[in-house]
Amino acid sequence: MEVNFADRMKIVKPSAIRELLQFGANPEIISFAGGYPDPNLFPVEQLRGIFQSAISENGRNVLQYTLSNGLPRLREQLAEKMKREGTACTADEVLILQGAQQGLDLVAKMLINAGDLIITENPTFLGALIAFNPFEPRYKTVPIDENGMVVDELEELLKTTPRAKLLYTTPDFHNPTGVTLSLERRKKLLQLATKYDLIILEDSPYRDLRYQGEQVPSIKSMDTEGRVIYLGSFSKILAPALRIGWAVASKKIVESLGLLKLAADTQTSTLNMFAVSTFLDKCDFDALLLSIRNTYRHKKALMLDTMRGEFPQEVAFTDPNGGLFTWLTFSPGFNAGEFLREKALPLAKVAYVPGATFYPVVQEPNHARMSYSLQSDEQLVEGISRLGEVLRKTGSL
Amino acid sequence: MEVNFADRMKIVKPSAIRELLQFGANPEIISFAGGYPDPNLFPVEQLRGIFQSAISENGRNVLQYTLSNGLPRLREQLAEKMKREGTACTADEVLILQGAQQGLDLVAKMLINAGDLIITENPTFLGALIAFNPFEPRYKTVPIDENGMVVDELEELLKTTPRAKLLYTTPDFHNPTGVTLSLERRKKLLQLATKYDLIILEDSPYRDLRYQGEQVPSIKSMDTEGRVIYLGSFSKILAPALRIGWAVASKKIVESLGLLKLAADTQTSTLNMFAVSTFLDKCDFDALLLSIRNTYRHKKALMLDTMRGEFPQEVAFTDPNGGLFTWLTFSPGFNAGEFLREKALPLAKVAYVPGATFYPVVQEPNHARMSYSLQSDEQLVEGISRLGEVLRKTGSL
Repeated sequence: MEVNFADRMKIVKPSAIRELLQFGANPEIISFAGGYPDPNLFPVEQLRGIFQSAISENGRNVLQYTLSNGLPRLREQLAEKMKREGTACTADEVLILQGAQQGLDLVAKMLINAGDLIITENPTFLGALIAFNPFEPRYKTVPIDENGMVVDELEELLKTTPRAKLLYTTPDFHNPTGVTLSLERRKKLLQLATKYDLIILEDSPYRDLRYQGEQVPSIKSMDTEGRVIYLGSFSKILAPALRIGWAVASKKIVESLGLLKLAADTQTSTLNMFAVSTFLDKCDFDALLLSIRNTYRHKKALMLDTMRGEFPQEVAFTDPNGGLFTWLTFSPGFNAGEFLREKALPLAKVAYVPGATFYPVVQEPNHARMSYSLQSDEQLVEGISRLGEVLRKTGSL
Repeated sequence: MEVNFADRMKIVKPSAIRELLQFGANPEIISFAGGYPDPNLFPVEQLRGIFQSAISENGRNVLQYTLSNGLPRLREQLAEKMKREGTACTADEVLILQGAQQGLDLVAKMLINAGDLIITENPTFLGALIAFNPFEPRYKTVPIDENGMVVDELEELLKTTPRAKLLYTTPDFHNPTGVTLSLERRKKLLQLATKYDLIILEDSPYRDLRYQGEQVPSIKSMDTEGRVIYLGSFSKILAPALRIGWAVASKKIVESLGLLKLAADTQTSTLNMFAVSTFLDKCDFDALLLSIRNTYRHKKALMLDTMRGEFPQEVAFTDPNGGLFTWLTFSPGFNAGEFLREKALPLAKVAYVPGATFYPVVQEPNHARMSYSLQSDEQLVEGISRLGEVLRKTGSL
């Protein structure tokens, strides 16, 4: 007889992201679902050379264990990169992570006890919710508009709510909506964090992907109290498979997170850290970013132009200045999850992420997240046109 | 003013392992501390070729995201490997991990609530304790002798203790003692697990490293109830830097652990999974294992022979049939931690892991863990001789 684990297991709910990642495998489906970067942008030839030299010249070291906080040289390089971009920090304020996702897990493990209050944007990144949920927090949410989190509403919330532990935000090219938090709101957010003694988790994996408009200073760059934990990632700018992300925080926080990192997986791949470090030293990172930005600027415009032509007028969508996503809003009453299952997938052979999954508390059914990064121009136009056709044939949107 | 995180942070204690990993960096110190494999055994040339071909022939795929449970081909290969070695399972009962260490974290996250009881061998693997501790379990321990956990003592414990949730064991070439759990005890352990409804976490990263004696069937191979979660690793047989480990468990458990894996770090490196998969398909894995086993059999014998010649007679040590470690027992009253700090490091320039750190409840100070895997023959003899000299000069051991 098989043991019943369910009665002793903490709740582990299936994730919508996981289901959607599978769509990519069916070649008939044009998927706008996952946040996959365009693989044509991967610096394949440079990475091939880097891996080959690393292993042949330095194999005994790059294949061995190393320090769990990450290769010292890479931590230095990241401190330099952050500093160059306006966020002053030192190498011992940088922790190398197994992708930025690991930062969400480790911060939750460090800070969250069951019942603790986390404040998020509404909607927010699903990956953060699944990282936080095993630690059983409660959530309160703050609405978002074209300038990011509505910080005045946050203030109202903080006035009336018992002490919150953590505020989670993706201020740059927000996942799932694509909007960016304005400078004025960032300043006010920090003031409120000080007043109400909030820790801010600033998750910014898309920050390097701005393709139009002026960069806004990171919240961390204005943090004088060690109140902000910043997360960055190479997944969208070098290659997701390397699994290299990083945290920037006060030295004490990095030490605590580092101990949890050691307990969680010992360390990130020495070889992959070495490869990223070598890329930063020897290759033209700025040229790579330029080509990524040009590509996504073009793809975003192509997706939005095609939607303007092909979608019914009632469908609204955001116009981001960077990142990978646009956020669709259908008429109230439209159920994007049901439509995906019953129309988009079987009839249009197109996938997106139904918006409901991004709401921590009250799920709004009439949204969808679409990514313009993965598909070729042809597939992008084809997919949007097919989806538009099915949408036009459907009565109430 | 800097924010005080301490008042809102869960306890994160520094780890002895982390401190000790640093010894490796000082070239004067001969370290027997870490569980580092011998880098001369890394299949450097084969891995160089594999990475080069993988990226140049298949770069767009091996640098992209993949399924969070791991590359399907690698899961198949691991199911085949387990089956060949006597532990029948299917690919969907295999989960790819960021090293076996991640399995400890994910199982704890899945099962352990604050106050839950975990039973371990005494002593036990420090890495397991630091993975379990953030979930705030209580521990009870079972003594260990030359045939592994004393299962009769486990029975006594289970009779008198309220329901325990999890039994954690490293049955093959136990870390830190090097001993192996006998077949008879494995059978009795499973019977007790059924009778007292215990989940068994069988952590076996050294299983492929048997260099003498007969292999003992895994506990998982005798599990008819889905009661055992098995962890394996390529860290000691291919290269630690690749960070490829795996879990074998019932399909339902693998699904739950997979969702927690997705939340913890999205996935393990696609490239590294592909490299291991290619190695298993195209290279002579058995020849690699043969050379690893020959090397460690020789090094173990050399360390033990040298200790017999150089150490005072009062110092006892285990004689393992595989793995990386021997466990030293000094006279009662000897403090191996103090001796390390005051004599071994400054005078002998030799490092080991003081045994106290491996005890979950009551720490015995008069032990040390020594690894024979990393150092060359010359360094090994030199280090043991230097340590022996300082030990002989010290009065009470």
